[in-house]
Amino acid sequence: MSHGLIRDVVVNANIIEMEYAVRGAIPQRAAELKKQGRNIIFCNIGNPQALGQRPISYYRQILSLVEDPGQISREHQLRKVVGASIRDAALMLKEDVLQQAEYILHKMESGMGAYTESRGPAFIREAIARFIDERDQVSGGDGLRANPDHIFLTNGASDAVKSVLEMLIAAPQDGIMIPIPQYPLYSAAIKKLGGVQVNYYPDEESGWSLERAMLDESIRAAREQGVNVKAIVVINPGNPTGAILDEGSMREVIAFAHENNLAIMADEVYQENVYDGRFVSFAKMVGRAPVPLFSLHSVSKGFYGECGHRGGYLEVRNAPRVQGTDANFIDILVKQASVSLCSNTVGQILVYLMVTPPAPGSASAASFAREKQQILEELYKKAEIIKEAFTHMEGMHCFGRIGALYLFPRIDHLPAGTSDFEYCMQLLETTGLCTVNGRGFGQKPGTHHLRIAFLPPAEMLQEVLPQWIDFHNRHVRG
Amino acid sequence: MSHGLIRDVVVNANIIEMEYAVRGAIPQRAAELKKQGRNIIFCNIGNPQALGQRPISYYRQILSLVEDPGQISREHQLRKVVGASIRDAALMLKEDVLQQAEYILHKMESGMGAYTESRGPAFIREAIARFIDERDQVSGGDGLRANPDHIFLTNGASDAVKSVLEMLIAAPQDGIMIPIPQYPLYSAAIKKLGGVQVNYYPDEESGWSLERAMLDESIRAAREQGVNVKAIVVINPGNPTGAILDEGSMREVIAFAHENNLAIMADEVYQENVYDGRFVSFAKMVGRAPVPLFSLHSVSKGFYGECGHRGGYLEVRNAPRVQGTDANFIDILVKQASVSLCSNTVGQILVYLMVTPPAPGSASAASFAREKQQILEELYKKAEIIKEAFTHMEGMHCFGRIGALYLFPRIDHLPAGTSDFEYCMQLLETTGLCTVNGRGFGQKPGTHHLRIAFLPPAEMLQEVLPQWIDFHNRHVRG
Repeated sequence: MSHGLIRDVVVNANIIEMEYAVRGAIPQRAAELKKQGRNIIFCNIGNPQALGQRPISYYRQILSLVEDPGQISREHQLRKVVGASIRDAALMLKEDVLQQAEYILHKMESGMGAYTESRGPAFIREAIARFIDERDQVSGGDGLRANPDHIFLTNGASDAVKSVLEMLIAAPQDGIMIPIPQYPLYSAAIKKLGGVQVNYYPDEESGWSLERAMLDESIRAAREQGVNVKAIVVINPGNPTGAILDEGSMREVIAFAHENNLAIMADEVYQENVYDGRFVSFAKMVGRAPVPLFSLHSVSKGFYGECGHRGGYLEVRNAPRVQGTDANFIDILVKQASVSLCSNTVGQILVYLMVTPPAPGSASAASFAREKQQILEELYKKAEIIKEAFTHMEGMHCFGRIGALYLFPRIDHLPAGTSDFEYCMQLLETTGLCTVNGRGFGQKPGTHHLRIAFLPPAEMLQEVLPQWIDFHNRHVRG
Repeated sequence: MSHGLIRDVVVNANIIEMEYAVRGAIPQRAAELKKQGRNIIFCNIGNPQALGQRPISYYRQILSLVEDPGQISREHQLRKVVGASIRDAALMLKEDVLQQAEYILHKMESGMGAYTESRGPAFIREAIARFIDERDQVSGGDGLRANPDHIFLTNGASDAVKSVLEMLIAAPQDGIMIPIPQYPLYSAAIKKLGGVQVNYYPDEESGWSLERAMLDESIRAAREQGVNVKAIVVINPGNPTGAILDEGSMREVIAFAHENNLAIMADEVYQENVYDGRFVSFAKMVGRAPVPLFSLHSVSKGFYGECGHRGGYLEVRNAPRVQGTDANFIDILVKQASVSLCSNTVGQILVYLMVTPPAPGSASAASFAREKQQILEELYKKAEIIKEAFTHMEGMHCFGRIGALYLFPRIDHLPAGTSDFEYCMQLLETTGLCTVNGRGFGQKPGTHHLRIAFLPPAEMLQEVLPQWIDFHNRHVRG
């Protein structure tokens, strides 16, 4: 019998050791300062609507109707009752919004409140497959079409990453190659699952491109340590780098994966955030190469920015068979998904809307296009404003084409004995700007960086950037 | 270089072996039959809205407004514009619905589209704490109040279970005690995490009560095998049994946990589904006993039935310190939650609405109470109809007070050499009724059961129950 004391508990050491800088010490300090009344600009995370980005009206009007279908009949009734007495057409919902909501409710059968199929409703997976084929300009008959049964709707892309890694990491020596720097979800998930993180290093000065010799060296070194490398993660556009991968680098990765029997996990959640660049998917580049491919997309980024709704999907190509069983990788993923029953239905519907924008000429088409364009143009403009500010900071270098929601400049002239952690902490204390230091994502030994999400309103940037320039130039001079 | 073939991949054996009967062979066969045009009644899962239960209007009206705040100002404008010309008050939203939506949007700050704090928004956690205190009749000053900082919003209760078990299972010999029968999420999660499932056996014939000698024997046997038992799971009201635990049994569990340094995981997602019984929480019964307690609640069950929205919460009491660190269990849970960023905001808002029903006298109070009462009364009536049918089935015995959404009768007279699996499969083929056989939940060796969710509309039951009785009596006679 114990004596009214709670014994300490032994907790999974992997979880204790796991790190997650995006919500780590610097953002925590920022939250404290905010509580004390300081004005904080949260650039530590890609959370657009927290910094004033407005949701796409078309999406929200439809979500509103599918949550309360009574509104649809009410709208029809209102039209009859008030008829011509309402001059203000803006008070009435658009026809295509009502139709899309009615269509969704028809296809959902039991509405938004029932568990769906574990993978997500078939009509949404079919729409995703059509979206992928159209994006990648794949036509029938060539055997390269997306398969709706190999698509899984998830609570944001994070869930998809975890599901796949859980399956791939089958033994303590199983390794996953990840780029350095990387989004810490990957390092955290690998750590938690007790696998081995195998680093590879995109070349910063050539815009974070990938070279074969570097990939070969990475896997050679891992194998020398007895690591069984099973997959390579690529984030394109990059997080934290924001860089857009060139097609040559993609070809290198695919050939490398093929020759080394690796699966590719392609994190493509920023595929709409390419601004003056062009997005090419791994699915398209893989083509007929027999390389298992897991690709991810999400409603959190792009011009949608619907982070809180946690919608995403995973598409699998060239699913391998599972050794020692009759099962395919897909079968086991389905079983795994079934234990959580299904992803949330609102996130599912947002994914559906993401892949089926208003048809040209429909009532919402013009406003949808305008809102989309405005968000993407503003993001690009803000990225350029910040990048320009770097030119006034001594030894601050930012490489790669602008993509995703981030800039990841290298800080060359830190005072001796200090790191990017102190830099970011002092930047926060001095200016209220909350960034994340490079170490949170990993970086080449001896280099220092920070990641900033280019999300704050332009006026806010105009105010804080001179302060940052001032802070920087004083800081680096010690 | 491989030659255009995809190598088989080695997948985490725990995931391959994991079973999940609720979406297993019988429901899969049911889905096939449905595709072929058969009329199937899905009683394999507690998914009320899939079987025609209507969502609570008040909840959905508010969700509708918070998704599209433009509707709120539109409503105010409409009132002005159309004014008295609308005689039909039903076309206008109720005042308290508008106010609650405005309040939520005010507290959410960035609306529904931003990531929230990892644990969920503070105002919701505070409301949950007040709900718990009120439910358990805890007043200030006695130190037993719920702590909002120890509450975590999750994507349904399933996510919470997995988070806690992931932390507790720190080594392959770490064991978790679970009741047999149990909800297979527990066995699946333990299996996946590589821990040891330690069975204990509630006493069926005394209404699934728990006796100390049985618990002692269970832990003794596990320890003899070198298992390090860390927690005991209790599901109350029971799933699959549907039984309501008596207070004596709860006291036994708490004393047992205390003396053996175990945490209690109390799955209380069916706390509103007690019909003629009364729900007593583990938090209340634990009182001042220094036993770590993880309790779960969800918007999926009760009279809400909002399964698809994936909303739930975890409340932690007497959080232990984490051995070998300065951290508390809560700190690590927060870090873990932060890797998934946050649970979905709509699920969060539904949890908020679940714990803050319309105030007495408010515009929605009466209709809310009516809808709630009607759903709970119907559920109870349907359970009784089914239970009555069992009395016409030879050797069919159903124990315990009616609770949750399930009945779990024992089938005593199966033909020699057959099991409850064949019984349920043939019941499905013969009548279209999809249930899950007892083995899917675990059962005492030598016994046979099935679980049926008492959700189909009463008319549907009136039609299928005579067929079931007929099938049963022919089946058991071989």
